[in-house]
Amino acid sequence: MASPVLTSVSEKRNLQYLARFTQVRSFTESICRPLTPEDHVVQPMADVSPPKWHMAHTTWFFETFLLNAYDPNYQLFHPDYSYLFNSYYESVGKRVLRAHRGNMTRPPVEDILRYRTHVNAAMQALLDREEAWPERFYYILEVGLQHEQQHQELLFTDLKYILGNNPLFPAYREDVADLPAATPRPSGYLTVDEGVYPIGFAGEGFCFDNELGRHQVYLHACRLQDRLVTNGEYLEFIEAGGYQNFRYWLAEGWDWVKTHQATAPLYWHQIEGEWHYYTLGGLKKVDLHSPVTHVNYYEADAYARFRGKRLPTEFEWEVACQQQGKLPDAANLGDREIWHPAPAAEGQPQLYGDVWEWTSSAYLPYPYYQHEDGALGEYNGKFMISQMVLRGGSCITPRDHIRPTYRNFFHPDKQWQFTGIRLAETV
Amino acid sequence: MASPVLTSVSEKRNLQYLARFTQVRSFTESICRPLTPEDHVVQPMADVSPPKWHMAHTTWFFETFLLNAYDPNYQLFHPDYSYLFNSYYESVGKRVLRAHRGNMTRPPVEDILRYRTHVNAAMQALLDREEAWPERFYYILEVGLQHEQQHQELLFTDLKYILGNNPLFPAYREDVADLPAATPRPSGYLTVDEGVYPIGFAGEGFCFDNELGRHQVYLHACRLQDRLVTNGEYLEFIEAGGYQNFRYWLAEGWDWVKTHQATAPLYWHQIEGEWHYYTLGGLKKVDLHSPVTHVNYYEADAYARFRGKRLPTEFEWEVACQQQGKLPDAANLGDREIWHPAPAAEGQPQLYGDVWEWTSSAYLPYPYYQHEDGALGEYNGKFMISQMVLRGGSCITPRDHIRPTYRNFFHPDKQWQFTGIRLAETV
Amino acid sequence: MASPVLTSVSEKRNLQYLARFTQVRSFTESICRPLTPEDHVVQPMADVSPPKWHMAHTTWFFETFLLNAYDPNYQLFHPDYSYLFNSYYESVGKRVLRAHRGNMTRPPVEDILRYRTHVNAAMQALLDREEAWPERFYYILEVGLQHEQQHQELLFTDLKYILGNNPLFPAYREDVADLPAATPRPSGYLTVDEGVYPIGFAGEGFCFDNELGRHQVYLHACRLQDRLVTNGEYLEFIEAGGYQNFRYWLAEGWDWVKTHQATAPLYWHQIEGEWHYYTLGGLKKVDLHSPVTHVNYYEADAYARFRGKRLPTEFEWEVACQQQGKLPDAANLGDREIWHPAPAAEGQPQLYGDVWEWTSSAYLPYPYYQHEDGALGEYNGKFMISQMVLRGGSCITPRDHIRPTYRNFFHPDKQWQFTGIRLAETV
Amino acid sequence: MASPVLTSVSEKRNLQYLARFTQVRSFTESICRPLTPEDHVVQPMADVSPPKWHMAHTTWFFETFLLNAYDPNYQLFHPDYSYLFNSYYESVGKRVLRAHRGNMTRPPVEDILRYRTHVNAAMQALLDREEAWPERFYYILEVGLQHEQQHQELLFTDLKYILGNNPLFPAYREDVADLPAATPRPSGYLTVDEGVYPIGFAGEGFCFDNELGRHQVYLHACRLQDRLVTNGEYLEFIEAGGYQNFRYWLAEGWDWVKTHQATAPLYWHQIEGEWHYYTLGGLKKVDLHSPVTHVNYYEADAYARFRGKRLPTEFEWEVACQQQGKLPDAANLGDREIWHPAPAAEGQPQLYGDVWEWTSSAYLPYPYYQHEDGALGEYNGKFMISQMVLRGGSCITPRDHIRPTYRNFFHPDKQWQFTGIRLAETV
Repeated sequence: MASPVLTSVSEKRNLQYLARFTQVRSFTESICRPLTPEDHVVQPMADVSPPKWHMAHTTWFFETFLLNAYDPNYQLFHPDYSYLFNSYYESVGKRVLRAHRGNMTRPPVEDILRYRTHVNAAMQALLDREEAWPERFYYILEVGLQHEQQHQELLFTDLKYILGNNPLFPAYREDVADLPAATPRPSGYLTVDEGVYPIGFAGEGFCFDNELGRHQVYLHACRLQDRLVTNGEYLEFIEAGGYQNFRYWLAEGWDWVKTHQATAPLYWHQIEGEWHYYTLGGLKKVDLHSPVTHVNYYEADAYARFRGKRLPTEFEWEVACQQQGKLPDAANLGDREIWHPAPAAEGQPQLYGDVWEWTSSAYLPYPYYQHEDGALGEYNGKFMISQMVLRGGSCITPRDHIRPTYRNFFHPDKQWQFTGIRLAETV
Repeated sequence: MASPVLTSVSEKRNLQYLARFTQVRSFTESICRPLTPEDHVVQPMADVSPPKWHMAHTTWFFETFLLNAYDPNYQLFHPDYSYLFNSYYESVGKRVLRAHRGNMTRPPVEDILRYRTHVNAAMQALLDREEAWPERFYYILEVGLQHEQQHQELLFTDLKYILGNNPLFPAYREDVADLPAATPRPSGYLTVDEGVYPIGFAGEGFCFDNELGRHQVYLHACRLQDRLVTNGEYLEFIEAGGYQNFRYWLAEGWDWVKTHQATAPLYWHQIEGEWHYYTLGGLKKVDLHSPVTHVNYYEADAYARFRGKRLPTEFEWEVACQQQGKLPDAANLGDREIWHPAPAAEGQPQLYGDVWEWTSSAYLPYPYYQHEDGALGEYNGKFMISQMVLRGGSCITPRDHIRPTYRNFFHPDKQWQFTGIRLAETV
Repeated sequence: MASPVLTSVSEKRNLQYLARFTQVRSFTESICRPLTPEDHVVQPMADVSPPKWHMAHTTWFFETFLLNAYDPNYQLFHPDYSYLFNSYYESVGKRVLRAHRGNMTRPPVEDILRYRTHVNAAMQALLDREEAWPERFYYILEVGLQHEQQHQELLFTDLKYILGNNPLFPAYREDVADLPAATPRPSGYLTVDEGVYPIGFAGEGFCFDNELGRHQVYLHACRLQDRLVTNGEYLEFIEAGGYQNFRYWLAEGWDWVKTHQATAPLYWHQIEGEWHYYTLGGLKKVDLHSPVTHVNYYEADAYARFRGKRLPTEFEWEVACQQQGKLPDAANLGDREIWHPAPAAEGQPQLYGDVWEWTSSAYLPYPYYQHEDGALGEYNGKFMISQMVLRGGSCITPRDHIRPTYRNFFHPDKQWQFTGIRLAETV
Repeated sequence: MASPVLTSVSEKRNLQYLARFTQVRSFTESICRPLTPEDHVVQPMADVSPPKWHMAHTTWFFETFLLNAYDPNYQLFHPDYSYLFNSYYESVGKRVLRAHRGNMTRPPVEDILRYRTHVNAAMQALLDREEAWPERFYYILEVGLQHEQQHQELLFTDLKYILGNNPLFPAYREDVADLPAATPRPSGYLTVDEGVYPIGFAGEGFCFDNELGRHQVYLHACRLQDRLVTNGEYLEFIEAGGYQNFRYWLAEGWDWVKTHQATAPLYWHQIEGEWHYYTLGGLKKVDLHSPVTHVNYYEADAYARFRGKRLPTEFEWEVACQQQGKLPDAANLGDREIWHPAPAAEGQPQLYGDVWEWTSSAYLPYPYYQHEDGALGEYNGKFMISQMVLRGGSCITPRDHIRPTYRNFFHPDKQWQFTGIRLAETV
């Protein structure tokens, strides 16, 4: 008679992490599967990294911070890779300048996939044992997984940029739409009362250091739209001459409009008098009821001014989001379930049908923010200048990254993320 | 027997404004008096405007918004000047691109002075009458005077840049020091208790639209240094390799250090092993006890990190300032009387001995901020992106511009203003 | 009994062209065969075109100028390719800007190979018939083949640049050396007597329009080195501080040195005190007896000045070359047979062991030069400004492009071609 | 009875030089006299130097190469001036970067004038003696005078650029026209027979090193227009869509057209449907019969192609010029006396009514060209790349600089010199 196998707590934790590790790692590869080798290598603008680079850099993270540190027998896959696939960690030595990533045709994609397999196997060996690792090990592992998930989102936006700027407009996958067709409905408002509210992450689970340091903010009474601004609404701005009238624009935004001769969101093309846009499923007619996306902060702010409103602060947004979440009946902010996103179909990209929302808050540290020491301390804090906070999550954001306190951030001129607009006003 | 001359309320108001108008206008000219004609014309970097241009542009303001609007008989001094001396008012038509201002050798300085005389005389005629003008007239007049005072400060910083980058390092005036020698004293702290505080302008008198909309903020307990960081303290940062160690710097700041090969604040030069700096009085040895100045936000932030501290938010600063101001005995924030600056000696530049203080707050609208319509609405609101707030005032700030609620703002890389550092920490 | 097949003159000409067409076209593909798909797509600097692009563009030439013009039944392979793969022919419509070629990941390499097959088959059908085509047809066909051969050379230099700037320095083929090891021998001189000489192409066979218009030039007596400058000789220039001494350099060249912090030819790297260079066979120690290559005009001119000599004019070079060629015993210019290069091994890249030679002549039209009309007229004439003539041919130049009258041309700052130095002096 | 004063040969030579020195030096100052101090200081594009700088730099030449070298008692006017007013002589130490010249408001114009007086007095003392100086002294003195004369021409073109780009279009002097009104006449041709001709300077008098080394060239028969292309003729090119049709342009020229949105020569403005141009006398209607000027090489070459002709080579030009000069009756090339220009009115700028003529020759060394050693060797040779030769002289060229062998040179995109067109063709 077979005796039952008892699994220790440590072993169980290791196995749970292994399962997640495996799932996260393989999803990255599934994102790249529809791409050609050629698609993996280019960098059409500085913000976009080659898909191959994303696959290697996320692997480099585990090799550098876990395998090199915790496995004395670990054999580097290739001695030059630590130089090639470092991104911006100044503390970990020399790196390829961001703007030159797109010229690195070697190592080829197949080597990168072998690199992933090599590191995955070594990681699996570490997790496949009964004893516990030090807590720091699990922390770094968690950061590595979160980091890889962030790069999964960037993979989508970067490959969209690569394909969407190709004169042939090839679809990433014919069977996907990045934002689903939406049912029209008028916009209502969510009201936030004047008062002092807690802000920042609390409770169990993972969060980034920029969400920590729960603290109080005072909010004046305000209200936020209960759904996102749609393409149809944004088209009214375009057709009212919004891109030709400086009055709606920040000075810096107006310079951007003129320099780029902007007339519509990124990926929009007027073809024979009709507006189309490039989606991951190819070139389509603009769906008037879907949320507008690929607008930068200047455009979001100009649109708000056109409507006589403004963007919400990140604090207003977080409080509104928390309040809605507490309601037993309609636990969502507008027309999506913001922190309960739809489950992704098996083995497929998760396309939730939503966009990151520009807030009017600059990306700055919270009052109790601590800079972490060492390389991981370079993760968030050093970017806290000249960027604006976005809240929510998008159709391509990994579901466990969608939470009320998550702070995304981009420079105000960036359009290539799935970014949209929710209006607010002080009442 | 002579009957007494009765002065009506309107007439008195007009006369008071005339006196102020005359004083403000003539002070601008006194700032330029030590300059050569050649000094008036160049623009060594895009941020710096030629002194001649400042003199003309401030005059253009009165001509465009008051004389053209309220005096049907007003004769333009020159039909092209409205085109030449518009700065950034998109609503008032074509303008010379900022970067080309420095090539306009004509009109010569003497014509600009005649232009000033022409407009002054016309303004005097408007103010030299017994009846009242519509309230809007006084409002624009007030804005025009405040505007000219802001340009007086820019005149000082711009001429300092022009002369301070000349290989001969000519003094602006041998008899001035921009920052006075200071008495050494150790730094203490001003404490702000946790609580909800009012922010923004209240009461009588002029303020800019960006200060308006009195509202509440919640502050966690914190403390601010009771004096500014000194050159001596900053030198410790330099000598500890502060400019060579990425760990102290924001990523954007570190790029700035490398691109500009920065090793010290603007105007600092190491001559035969000893640090000197250019002042309005010429090249001097660095005074270790004076407040450090001409540091940009990146430098201020890096210095704070070096000390394990941070910069105050603009709200912490304003509350600390208000609290100190209420005390009957020591009405100052640190070592200067911040909103009761020393009176300037007659007919001389006002050199108070102080610097603008970088805060960690981005320049953004207050909750109740209203964009004003028309050209005057372009004054502040359209710059509310990508800049940081500075509080206080500097040795060259007109004294009536120094108040606890005044919000100055510059991009984080700018050094040419008199900008300094006060450290803070959450407690 | 089988009757003999009689081949008409026309048919024979067609078949001869078909054989050459097939040989030239397949050689292009054999050049690309060692590359990964990723290698085919990038453009690490504006001068370098992606290998994929070369393969498509040479195909586009036959499709556009022959198939579209002479085959009424020809079906375009893809309607967008004429837009995608036009290079600089303004007369043939819209084209992708040169600097964006490197972002075109689609069509993938395999589609380009199918495009080549499609066009090859259609061309074969045209050549596979008994009747003659109009003379214009053969002329364009000839130009198309010459054009493809020019791109074969560019393919080698561009793929060398792509691989040689990769941090891993991957070999193109381990079994090739771009320049063979050479036997040391002292340099002698070839003398050209004063006199009037004919210049330009004469006789049968193909040449480019820039060689046409046989005409006279007067030469003063001069002499040219009878072999190329070697790496060892050039190293003496480096070690004598050649790159640190402005006296040797043209002003523009000195600016180039400082801007690029140049210290050696392109692809040279000092590794642990020893000079290496990247070759198509990988990173090797510098062979001191091989001709120096990958120097630009500034470097060639500076080296000549260092030696108290100068570069030859293109006329001196051509006359010296013709004179040597006429001699029955030693028909070569120095140490190579310049217009009778060694036959290439079967199915392999032709690597002759030689370099293009910078002359001191600017690339300008000959006295009887005629601009051809139409798109083919854009081939040469419009580049006749700001470039210098190179003569000879290199280790990767197709053998039928090596002739005494051939005029190659590049801007004086270009290093990525196989370019070298032969000294001259007036006597 | 007064005895006659005998003047030695040496003394006479010294006195003759003194007279010329005085005349040349004072003419420089007379050119600047109509300028305001502000006009003296700016540098609206990199090619243009501030007038003040020209005045100082020409003075620096005499101070550096004569007074410092030959006068042991000479006192420098100011120790920093050698640093401030060096132009491009790498051998004479540190210099202010060309692009920063326009920010040097100090020393002011009046100091520069005092500098000139100081150096003039010291030079006068050297020349005011009976003994001869070494020949080298006279040679450098001659170069210094020629150098200053070259800067006189640049002074005119630079001040034209400064004033002509001012939105007010101020006249330099109301009483001058840079090119005089011309009498219409049809263009004939000057024929040059096939043959071998001598090229380069021969005989007595001064010339630059780039004219030296008399040598032979072979010319094919050709003919040159006997007058310059007029504004009216050039207007036909404009009106025929010349600036919109790539077929006329060199590839580099077509890029220039598109980048600069060029539609006419520099200084041309269409005002209410009529073409005007800025002249030194202010804005005028275009005179259809005057020679077209302020065209760059691209424009000259495109115009020639439009007419089915070409530009002459510098050798054709020199031979045609010499042949015409030999004719006893009408010793001129076309409609001007090219090497016998009209005498200038006393104390006035010399405005001859003519333009420099673009040739199709690149600026390269003659066969026997020798690089001079030392700083004076940097004068010409180091610029022999990427520039085109111009021949003749312009309305503002000092008359003793107009000779058949003089080689002027500019980059093909430059328009700010008085440059024009004479067509040629091979016959």
